[in-house]
Amino acid sequence: MEQVLVGVDLGGTFIKFGIFKENGELLGKWQVPTGERAAQAVLSKITWEIVEKSGYAVNQMKGVGIGIPGAVDGQGMIINAPNLGWRMLDIKEPLLKKLSIPVQVGNDANVAALGEQYFGVGGGCSSMVMVTLGTGVGGGVIIDGRLVPGAFGGGGEIGHIQVNDQETVACGCGNKGCLEQYASATGIASLARRELERTDEASLLRSCTELTAKDVFDAVKDRDILADRVAEQFGQALAKALSYIACTVDPEVFVIGGGVSAAGPVLLNYIEKYYRQFAFTPSKQTPFKLAALGNDAGIYGAARLVMLNK
Amino acid sequence: MEQVLVGVDLGGTFIKFGIFKENGELLGKWQVPTGERAAQAVLSKITWEIVEKSGYAVNQMKGVGIGIPGAVDGQGMIINAPNLGWRMLDIKEPLLKKLSIPVQVGNDANVAALGEQYFGVGGGCSSMVMVTLGTGVGGGVIIDGRLVPGAFGGGGEIGHIQVNDQETVACGCGNKGCLEQYASATGIASLARRELERTDEASLLRSCTELTAKDVFDAVKDRDILADRVAEQFGQALAKALSYIACTVDPEVFVIGGGVSAAGPVLLNYIEKYYRQFAFTPSKQTPFKLAALGNDAGIYGAARLVMLNK
Repeated sequence: MEQVLVGVDLGGTFIKFGIFKENGELLGKWQVPTGERAAQAVLSKITWEIVEKSGYAVNQMKGVGIGIPGAVDGQGMIINAPNLGWRMLDIKEPLLKKLSIPVQVGNDANVAALGEQYFGVGGGCSSMVMVTLGTGVGGGVIIDGRLVPGAFGGGGEIGHIQVNDQETVACGCGNKGCLEQYASATGIASLARRELERTDEASLLRSCTELTAKDVFDAVKDRDILADRVAEQFGQALAKALSYIACTVDPEVFVIGGGVSAAGPVLLNYIEKYYRQFAFTPSKQTPFKLAALGNDAGIYGAARLVMLNK
Repeated sequence: MEQVLVGVDLGGTFIKFGIFKENGELLGKWQVPTGERAAQAVLSKITWEIVEKSGYAVNQMKGVGIGIPGAVDGQGMIINAPNLGWRMLDIKEPLLKKLSIPVQVGNDANVAALGEQYFGVGGGCSSMVMVTLGTGVGGGVIIDGRLVPGAFGGGGEIGHIQVNDQETVACGCGNKGCLEQYASATGIASLARRELERTDEASLLRSCTELTAKDVFDAVKDRDILADRVAEQFGQALAKALSYIACTVDPEVFVIGGGVSAAGPVLLNYIEKYYRQFAFTPSKQTPFKLAALGNDAGIYGAARLVMLNK
């Protein structure tokens, strides 16, 4: 009987589902609004979708992998998922009871990194660090083909590496000068607003009504000098954090993903330039790549979680 | 026939040898001066010592592990060992030819971390980061009970994480503001000299002829205010780097070793205080321990390398 893997990417707004062959080939995918965020409601919805919409019987499923927007420890225990209002929650056990198939749980950015490492731009490399530049900055560290979730769920929390100890504005986490304040979509927009306020030089960005990271990189492509300066600040902050990471795990490749990475190769120029300058000798030439799976990285990675834990 | 493991810690000054039971129990150890540093001379010396002085026949040896003072990649290739003048050198193959037993090679600080993780203070924990505070600052990252040597030999090169982008003096590596400049024995002594020059306040350190890190922590124990300020700077720099590392691999425990750690528990106070402040939420409570194996960590870790790769 044909066996399949189920990958779930649980977000604050949507839950995405993917059904994969055992070799990881995508057979089908769909998404539904997350709706009510109480754990029981979400778990019932996930179960219902898997049973009713996958097109496969539960006994054909080898397992379910789930990416969660929050800190998850090495055993798959959810330590804290602020967007869902969940704390110290085990969802593996209740899902296992409902479905009678193995369940694997990981942090969403960690899981997306695993998707890229195995099915995406990583090409099955042994070690990789991915940074996800979205509303916040997440990441995933992969060593020997496996995720490093961390002992307390803090593995790959790259957005909270401090890159500027002169910062006066606080990050959402309470510290000051976290990478997320300069490299997330919101961080890039803030950097741009700061530059616009600091000077009165002409810039395409002055005509933007709601200034976004996309506006900044669009203006960079149009050779806007102020936008270029913002991109330099972004690149410098991210390169700094990646140079620290290289001195820790020294990965084969760095992968840049998330909504901001839609800006394309121009983004890498700003990061690589500073990285080559900051990195310690052995890791100075580490290659950089843009993520390839886009929004599907999460469901792919969740399927890979199942493959790794069978 | 009783089988043994051979652990070798190759330093610029001494080569240390340890013979271990298969379960890691130390049967005997000795050391010899490194002498001539040409690769052939060193390898001949290592072979001769193992064959002549171990008290065991080569066919009783399950393997030899060797820690090297330099960058070693995941395959055991020595990329660069400046203290020995070695570059891009494979010593596994020639030693295998001489001894006909498997040879494992790792970076010395990485290997010492592995010793502490399995036989020392780590107590066999799954993940651990050790910082070795000696003449320089080295380290080792252990995930799932295995070393992370890094794709290009840069794994655990904690001493070259930049912690101060205002620094004007260059580190040995060419960058400025590396952790090593504030947390190594030489770095701590420099910090103290800077403080002594900056003020003319009374301090026990003024009477030291050759100011060392030991003098600084001895003065700290005698409640010397200037020495306390130096220790604060040391603790802050190291805590910063460890907070970055926690956002990357989030280990179960941090271990502080190397000559400087002989100062004892007082050292941890200065590090922990700042770490608790800098660390991102999930990792704020990561425990700190002092290394337990002292100068034997290298031979223990080298034996463990053999155990892991049999």
